[in-house]
Amino acid sequence: MRRVAIVGVGMTKFGEHWNLGFRDLILEAGVTALNDAKMHGDQIDGLFGGTMASGSMIGQEHIGALLADYMGLTPIASTRVEAACASGGLAFRTGFMAVASGLHDHVIVGGVEKMTDIGADQVALSLGGAGDQEWEVFQGATFPALYALMARRHMIDFGTKEEHFASVAVKNHANAAKNKFAQFQKEITIQDVMDSRPVASPLKILDCSPVSDGAAVAVLVPLEEARKYNDTPIEVVASAQTSGAIALHNRRTFTSLYATKMAAEKAYKMAKVTAKDIDVCEVHDCFTSAEVMAIEDLGFFDKGKGGFASFDGETALNSKISINTSGGLKGCGHPVGATGVKQVAEIVWQLRGQAGNRQVTGAEIGMTHNVGGSGATCAVHIMKRAD
Amino acid sequence: MRRVAIVGVGMTKFGEHWNLGFRDLILEAGVTALNDAKMHGDQIDGLFGGTMASGSMIGQEHIGALLADYMGLTPIASTRVEAACASGGLAFRTGFMAVASGLHDHVIVGGVEKMTDIGADQVALSLGGAGDQEWEVFQGATFPALYALMARRHMIDFGTKEEHFASVAVKNHANAAKNKFAQFQKEITIQDVMDSRPVASPLKILDCSPVSDGAAVAVLVPLEEARKYNDTPIEVVASAQTSGAIALHNRRTFTSLYATKMAAEKAYKMAKVTAKDIDVCEVHDCFTSAEVMAIEDLGFFDKGKGGFASFDGETALNSKISINTSGGLKGCGHPVGATGVKQVAEIVWQLRGQAGNRQVTGAEIGMTHNVGGSGATCAVHIMKRAD
Repeated sequence: MRRVAIVGVGMTKFGEHWNLGFRDLILEAGVTALNDAKMHGDQIDGLFGGTMASGSMIGQEHIGALLADYMGLTPIASTRVEAACASGGLAFRTGFMAVASGLHDHVIVGGVEKMTDIGADQVALSLGGAGDQEWEVFQGATFPALYALMARRHMIDFGTKEEHFASVAVKNHANAAKNKFAQFQKEITIQDVMDSRPVASPLKILDCSPVSDGAAVAVLVPLEEARKYNDTPIEVVASAQTSGAIALHNRRTFTSLYATKMAAEKAYKMAKVTAKDIDVCEVHDCFTSAEVMAIEDLGFFDKGKGGFASFDGETALNSKISINTSGGLKGCGHPVGATGVKQVAEIVWQLRGQAGNRQVTGAEIGMTHNVGGSGATCAVHIMKRAD
Repeated sequence: MRRVAIVGVGMTKFGEHWNLGFRDLILEAGVTALNDAKMHGDQIDGLFGGTMASGSMIGQEHIGALLADYMGLTPIASTRVEAACASGGLAFRTGFMAVASGLHDHVIVGGVEKMTDIGADQVALSLGGAGDQEWEVFQGATFPALYALMARRHMIDFGTKEEHFASVAVKNHANAAKNKFAQFQKEITIQDVMDSRPVASPLKILDCSPVSDGAAVAVLVPLEEARKYNDTPIEVVASAQTSGAIALHNRRTFTSLYATKMAAEKAYKMAKVTAKDIDVCEVHDCFTSAEVMAIEDLGFFDKGKGGFASFDGETALNSKISINTSGGLKGCGHPVGATGVKQVAEIVWQLRGQAGNRQVTGAEIGMTHNVGGSGATCAVHIMKRAD
């Protein structure tokens, strides 16, 4: 298996892009990433695109071909990967496999979603397709409802408070305000979150990631030729992916994601590191409660202590572990298919020392954690600067 | 790159399955394939599923997780791949990459589609997502319309007649009648096709592949351990994938698919064979005219001669080259995401000598050709019995 490095990343601003369509978004992110890698399109021989619900959101499937065509990259192999909100993470992993296998040499991985072309109720239904359509969605369970069940159980079992969840939103908005690509540029307070409109109790609107448009792209090459393109190549030292029960009722616990725990275990083993070695991590905070569970399942904090740790500032920028320096899904925005690749871009910037006023001091090892649905898919990647 | 072999295949009958849902179909095919490989689920460590339009057809995305869950295979890595009607072929290629890279050892590749849960007009709209939604679908161009434009141009440029196209349907129905998994079990005549209802002139209903439910599965392992599972492992000696313009108006020609020509060229090179060496080939005959173009683009016949060759019986079972012994999309049925994997199953049966009364005598080298949309994605695989 060949070693693989990232030599370029790029993204659009995340947010409501009334003047940009799906094709415009991926093109902007792609050109930025290629420029970052100092490469031309004709050097690329494979493309992997993560998109969740283009069929229901813009009436378009066959996304791989569309991306290759609109980026001017035909006849390269171009494949769409879908895994709900982990579509970007799985596209990244598939691109990694393509280079690792030797079947492709220079690969673009893109994540993109255009969510604002349809109404909010249609978005909720489209996103519902990430859960169990027969046993959850058709019974009226939206995604906030599913995550609210998990959050409530966490509160009951471990004494987590709504203010603990709220502190995650406060921290992620603070980080987002330092990120020019973030959808939200405004800091908020715990009181703002507590006073915000209920969505599915205990989750309020400021506990929820927003509906967003956006795209992110990464360029992967074999490690041995990475320095031709970039002075600071970032090696992908672990790529782990797992699955779990799609419906909540088939799980042993509501307060832990089996897929996350298993993926983290595999990733640490592959990278030969432990949770203590990770300096900066982008976790999947589709809801604030999801971040609390993630930082426990990834091994940064003991089970049940994630809410307390967040409230105590242990996940803030340059604290015990810097979580979601990009602003996360909550602050940076969550164009579902794009998120997994955006997480990679943020970690690359952190490991290169290019994260500006949100730079984690001395960041050596970074991680991304991308979740599909209510936890049935998980992708974890660990990265570090190439030797 | 490790060499990869197929040690098990399975499929459901293709057709209208009023009593079986999406989950039932993939489970049936999966269990059959695992039995064929004499393997248990706990020996599998990766799953790749091809599905085109589950979001719009059954309201379900996140198909990778669903497949792993319903097959009882969690926590394995499970990824959905989408490329319109080439979803199955690209899932197969991604599974091939997973084993070739060493990232996975024992991989299941599944293709599945449940198309009959929605009305015919909705199916047409869903399938339209395989074309260019902004420039074709929204202007009213359905898939039969797009292929009809190509067929008409072929008639004008090369003197191909409607009867030539019809002969493809006659041959594929004859093959399907020998395949217990095929949707259509009845032979037809050229006159039947000529008399059938027009869909988009020159294409009539009997020139078109049907709307189908179904699933197909293949099991891949590293070649060096293949004989542990199967006495006649089939090696995948070439895997090629390409892209082309998604909209017809961006192409240099209507009578040839650029993606097919490029994929064939790559595949022949990778397998170190030529078109003359292929004994049996499953081509993508979503319309009879598509088979005519495919057998030209793949190099079996000169450009413009495919219709004449078909009419003269040169593609019939045990003729010059046996094309679509399964019955093809036309006769066997076309559950879009399943087709690419079904093609692989048919070639495996042919190369093992298990194809019964549709066996190609002395078949040594087989090929599959799977197309997405009106030709913007193509996957070509070449297989032979392992040495």
